[in-house]
Amino acid sequence: MAVVKKVETKERFMGRLGHGCDLLGELNEICREKNVRLGWLKGLGAVRKACLAYYDQYTHEYQPLEIDRPLEITHLVGNVSVKDGNPFVHAHVTLADEKGHAYGGHLAPGTIVFACEFTLEILSGAVLERAFDETTGLSLWKMSE
Amino acid sequence: MAVVKKVETKERFMGRLGHGCDLLGELNEICREKNVRLGWLKGLGAVRKACLAYYDQYTHEYQPLEIDRPLEITHLVGNVSVKDGNPFVHAHVTLADEKGHAYGGHLAPGTIVFACEFTLEILSGAVLERAFDETTGLSLWKMSE
Amino acid sequence: MAVVKKVETKERFMGRLGHGCDLLGELNEICREKNVRLGWLKGLGAVRKACLAYYDQYTHEYQPLEIDRPLEITHLVGNVSVKDGNPFVHAHVTLADEKGHAYGGHLAPGTIVFACEFTLEILSGAVLERAFDETTGLSLWKMSE
Repeated sequence: MAVVKKVETKERFMGRLGHGCDLLGELNEICREKNVRLGWLKGLGAVRKACLAYYDQYTHEYQPLEIDRPLEITHLVGNVSVKDGNPFVHAHVTLADEKGHAYGGHLAPGTIVFACEFTLEILSGAVLERAFDETTGLSLWKMSE
Repeated sequence: MAVVKKVETKERFMGRLGHGCDLLGELNEICREKNVRLGWLKGLGAVRKACLAYYDQYTHEYQPLEIDRPLEITHLVGNVSVKDGNPFVHAHVTLADEKGHAYGGHLAPGTIVFACEFTLEILSGAVLERAFDETTGLSLWKMSE
Repeated sequence: MAVVKKVETKERFMGRLGHGCDLLGELNEICREKNVRLGWLKGLGAVRKACLAYYDQYTHEYQPLEIDRPLEITHLVGNVSVKDGNPFVHAHVTLADEKGHAYGGHLAPGTIVFACEFTLEILSGAVLERAFDETTGLSLWKMSE
C-alpha cells in the first residue's frame, strides 16, 4: 500500500556546489545546516569520478560501483527526510561518459564534484521518517503516522 | 509552434508506492483518486522488472521493451493531464542495472515496484487535454484552447 | 565552497514544444520572450536526432557528440540564469534508443524535437549570473554577490 502525505513548499534554494567536494557529503551538509526535515533535490553538472551503489534485491545488500573517470551528471534527484533523528539525503544519479553512454545508480560517498548546479525545495506539513523495512531490507518511510 | 500555458501549484504530495505494485498503474490510481486534472510527477527507487516502450517515429507504433531483472530507478518523470475525460499519467523512466549501465524509455504497464519514493504536484490554471496529433501519431496537448 | 541562494517561485508554465524545432533554441526562445532571469526546467519526450556535448575536464573543451537517429528523452533538466546580460538555458538530457540503451550529456544546438512536454518555473529573490571560472574553464555562477 502506498504512503501519500500532503506537503507544502516552505522555502527554496538554488546554487552550486564547490569544486572538489564530495557530492553526497555536501548535500547532507547543506541539509544539516538548514535543518531540513523534508525536502526534494534536483541537479545537473559533472563529476571527476563516481561512487554509486546497486541494491541487490535478493541479498538485501548494496553493491558498490566505482567509475573512476570524469562524467557528466545528466541528472541528480534526491529527497531529504529524517533518519535516526537527523536530516538524511537519499539520491540517485544518472551520468554520461565521453561517448555519451549513460550510467546510474544510488549515490554513495566518494563521488567528487567537478561542477554541480542544484535546487533544493524545503517542504513541510508532514513527517516522513525512515525506519527498517523487513520486506525490502531498506530504510523506508513508515506506513502509519 | 509551442503550446505554453501559465499554471499554479495547487497542492503537493510526497510519499512512497507499495512494494510489488504496478508502477504506472499505481500512479494512475493515485491521480484518479485525487481527480488530478494537471500535474507533474518525479521519483526514484527500484523495480523488480521493467516494461518500457520506444516510440517508432516512422511507423507511429510503440515497440515494447521488457527488462526482466531488478533495476534501480535513477529517475522517474511524468505529467498528468486529461485524456478521454480522465486523469492520465505520461511518464518516462531511467533505470540502471547491477553494472551501473543505464536504460530508459516510456513507462508501460508491467513495471513492478520494489521501492519508489515520489512527489506529485497538482497544478491548476490551465486545461491541457490530449487529442490525436496527425503529425506524430501521438496523443498530444491540443494547440488551441 | 558552495553558493546557495534563497529563491521563490514567481510563475510557472507547462506546455509542449513544436514538432521539428531545435530543442535548446526553443527553450532559449521561450525564456527570452518571458525575460526569465532565473528558472528551472524539466521535460520528457522524444527527439529525431540529438546533438550533445561532453566537457573534457582536462582540456577544458566541449567535445561534440551526435546521435543521428530517433531517441526518447527520458529526462530533460535545465536551469535559466543570466549570461552576458541575457537569459541563458543550461540543460542536460538523458535519452534512450530502440533497445532501451541510455545516452546523455550537455544539450547542444541541433537536437531536433519530435515531441517534448515541459514545465518551466520562473524564480526570483536572487541573482545568479554566469562568469568565467578559471578552475573549471566553465561559465559558473559567481561566488560573491
